[in-house]
Amino acid sequence: MYNRFCKLTSGNKREMKQNYKFIISYDGTRYHGWEKKPDLEMTIQGKLEGVLNRMIGAEGTGEVNLIGAGRTDAGVHARAMTASAVLDTHLSEAEIQSYMNTYLPEDISVNEVKVCSDRFHARYNAIGKTYRYTCWYGDGKPVFDRKYVTVLDREPNVDMMRKAAELLIGEHDFRSFCGNSKMKKSTVRVLDTINIEKNGNYIRFYFHGNGFLQNMVRILTGTLLEVGYGNISPEKIQDILKACDRKKAGPTARPEGLCMMKVDY
Amino acid sequence: MYNRFCKLTSGNKREMKQNYKFIISYDGTRYHGWEKKPDLEMTIQGKLEGVLNRMIGAEGTGEVNLIGAGRTDAGVHARAMTASAVLDTHLSEAEIQSYMNTYLPEDISVNEVKVCSDRFHARYNAIGKTYRYTCWYGDGKPVFDRKYVTVLDREPNVDMMRKAAELLIGEHDFRSFCGNSKMKKSTVRVLDTINIEKNGNYIRFYFHGNGFLQNMVRILTGTLLEVGYGNISPEKIQDILKACDRKKAGPTARPEGLCMMKVDY
Repeated sequence: MYNRFCKLTSGNKREMKQNYKFIISYDGTRYHGWEKKPDLEMTIQGKLEGVLNRMIGAEGTGEVNLIGAGRTDAGVHARAMTASAVLDTHLSEAEIQSYMNTYLPEDISVNEVKVCSDRFHARYNAIGKTYRYTCWYGDGKPVFDRKYVTVLDREPNVDMMRKAAELLIGEHDFRSFCGNSKMKKSTVRVLDTINIEKNGNYIRFYFHGNGFLQNMVRILTGTLLEVGYGNISPEKIQDILKACDRKKAGPTARPEGLCMMKVDY
Repeated sequence: MYNRFCKLTSGNKREMKQNYKFIISYDGTRYHGWEKKPDLEMTIQGKLEGVLNRMIGAEGTGEVNLIGAGRTDAGVHARAMTASAVLDTHLSEAEIQSYMNTYLPEDISVNEVKVCSDRFHARYNAIGKTYRYTCWYGDGKPVFDRKYVTVLDREPNVDMMRKAAELLIGEHDFRSFCGNSKMKKSTVRVLDTINIEKNGNYIRFYFHGNGFLQNMVRILTGTLLEVGYGNISPEKIQDILKACDRKKAGPTARPEGLCMMKVDY
């Protein structure tokens, strides 16, 4: 099970470098997103790397490079973000998990730590991702999950949204649904499924695809909600896709309703 | 449906006083409990009365007297606290609810407002209450409901706790489970059911009875957890009840895991 490799460096110092895979949950409310930024302390990646550097006795250095499967936006949550990093440590998987959970704040949890193949790369090896977007509407307020739902003024028409969602399934150029207007790489992605579930006062959108562009889930949701409110007809989705123009799609839905649920390898 | 009564006061001022029933949810994390206290601004009752006084044009007065079915402790939550108050207003039920939800903070929600009989009293008429106590244990952290669960160091033995719970069912003097050592009134209560459910990393205790003493659910839970950890044998519950001595029972479990679920009338 352990895939350790030791090598003698020039100074005869014994190294114990191994590649580790992490599964992480976080409440993104307080953070400027996953990706570390030089002058912003509050990022998920920054917090995690800070604790890992401290754990391996390299506090304050940039030695650990934690690779996330994706980069969630500011305020977006994750139930199972996957990440990988090469660490030089003699600690066991359980000890690493325990150390991280002790020193991480209460809104970031490490749910699993496993030694993995040296070739495993959390971003390049990801073949699919599931996101969930949660909306709530009603006369009261969603007191207990208010940080994890987007509150709607009124109930959207779910049947209309499902019709529109069908037209989004498949391989398309999703440039109209990309928040980065300067994106130079391909904006073609495969969207396998969009399930829209209504349960009491909640409407949950589940998106599964091979990859997602910047803000893509939030723009898809914002556009589907416009359909649900009757501002865009379901059939117009095809024109929006064809236009390859962000301005043709609906607004970017708020971050708090979005949660990364799973990464497939 | 409307049970309005108008009377002409000495000054010929028309009054529209009616009794209203409210169903309220709150996240108790930020509050010093339900009951208003003269020098503490942050109480649930205080917040609600403040908004109701403002609504009827009596801002800053103590005109509205909101009666809660029970008084939750600091940090304890409610999904359906019931309360009643006589209000002098021409607003409809829906308008009252909308006004309250607009001016209350996001951690207090009014889920229902109904005109009720003048004789309805949210505390005296309550014939039963359901409380839930939620515990979590595991290697990670309960990121998304961290304010609503009590984190345990390890898994308690649920079968042992169920055995002990059976001995608590029925009419007993619960003085050993009362947080108020100066309690002069009867400490006899009927506990109908204690259901202990295990689901994944969660253990949930459901208590239903005709009334609960101060801290009673938390002391019951704290004692059951001691049984679950093998520190108290299930049979010892009978001795603890008989002793009528708070010091014989287990510790008062933390407030964050407790939630008032329902009041029966």
